[in-house]
Amino acid sequence: MTMIKYPGGTIPAAKKTRTKAKLTIAAGNRGMDFENEINDTNAYYLERDIAVISKRPTPINIVKVDYTHGPKITQAYFEAQSTTDYNGIYKGRYLDFEAKSTHSKTSFPLSNIAPQQVRHLRNVIRHGGIAFFLIQIVAEEKVYLLDAEYICDFYENKPRKSIPFSVIKEKGHLVPFAYRPRHDYLAVVDEVFLKNEQ
Amino acid sequence: MTMIKYPGGTIPAAKKTRTKAKLTIAAGNRGMDFENEINDTNAYYLERDIAVISKRPTPINIVKVDYTHGPKITQAYFEAQSTTDYNGIYKGRYLDFEAKSTHSKTSFPLSNIAPQQVRHLRNVIRHGGIAFFLIQIVAEEKVYLLDAEYICDFYENKPRKSIPFSVIKEKGHLVPFAYRPRHDYLAVVDEVFLKNEQ
Repeated sequence: MTMIKYPGGTIPAAKKTRTKAKLTIAAGNRGMDFENEINDTNAYYLERDIAVISKRPTPINIVKVDYTHGPKITQAYFEAQSTTDYNGIYKGRYLDFEAKSTHSKTSFPLSNIAPQQVRHLRNVIRHGGIAFFLIQIVAEEKVYLLDAEYICDFYENKPRKSIPFSVIKEKGHLVPFAYRPRHDYLAVVDEVFLKNEQ
Repeated sequence: MTMIKYPGGTIPAAKKTRTKAKLTIAAGNRGMDFENEINDTNAYYLERDIAVISKRPTPINIVKVDYTHGPKITQAYFEAQSTTDYNGIYKGRYLDFEAKSTHSKTSFPLSNIAPQQVRHLRNVIRHGGIAFFLIQIVAEEKVYLLDAEYICDFYENKPRKSIPFSVIKEKGHLVPFAYRPRHDYLAVVDEVFLKNEQ
């Protein structure tokens, strides 16, 4: 999920022209968007010394910098993330995931996922890492964790252009929502990936 | 190491005003700067399916975006990386490192390292990751790998404001330089961190 933050910024204005660029708007009444909620969850994990997981900054292609009063970027463009948005370490294991939010009422469009993200997650799996997607269904106020292997298979075989929510619910795992941590996805990671190790 | 690239860019101009912001200039006759060499090394590791290691993009604080002709950033500022520049997975292990280049002739100034990087590397070590520094001594055209634990101890105890090259050579491990991979630091990781696992 690529989120762009402006101090006092205008996400809706941005959305008009950047619908294809994966911009997501605030998740309804919760008052905090999905990315911020995940960042907050990761901050919680770090504070409690549970895991060290961080968001990769959005890559920016810088064209012009003005050095008159210290470096100020005056022309730059957003670039697509060549990997995923989050990675880190949990219980000694490398962990890598992509978070996506959808406003659809029926299915998750595969166009939200870039081919290089699928390649990256395949690489991570092959090297022994834990890889998954967190998919937020905004209309239902629910977040599901899906094994990246399943999503990559679906993406490559493309039986459909989008994954129906029924499939996400069947193949995925509901991530508990609470005050803090907001989305306790590591509880699900324990269950899905580390059950035999504990 | 934070490196800023501009298409047809002017690193020396930048250096004038950004000396404290960790800008590094091209490494002499090699024609390629240290960051590019490490990125190239990581590309090699990925192609050969040896490891999946990537650079975190430089964080940028975006203030103004013009959407007239698609999103164009018109005002933004560089932010300090809150973690390190590189991380990834190698032989199933989480790996995290910071690369620094110094033009000094005698010692590596600790002012090149930010306190949050030391905290981050301490966290990584505690959670079972492999953490280190790659330090390039430009004047000698040599790169050394140093265990992050050693650098963090030195940083926190600060017996001196800089680490003498003699200490880097004694405590560190010379990274072989070749055409490709340019800096085969994983060969050193095998030796230093994974010897007992093989």
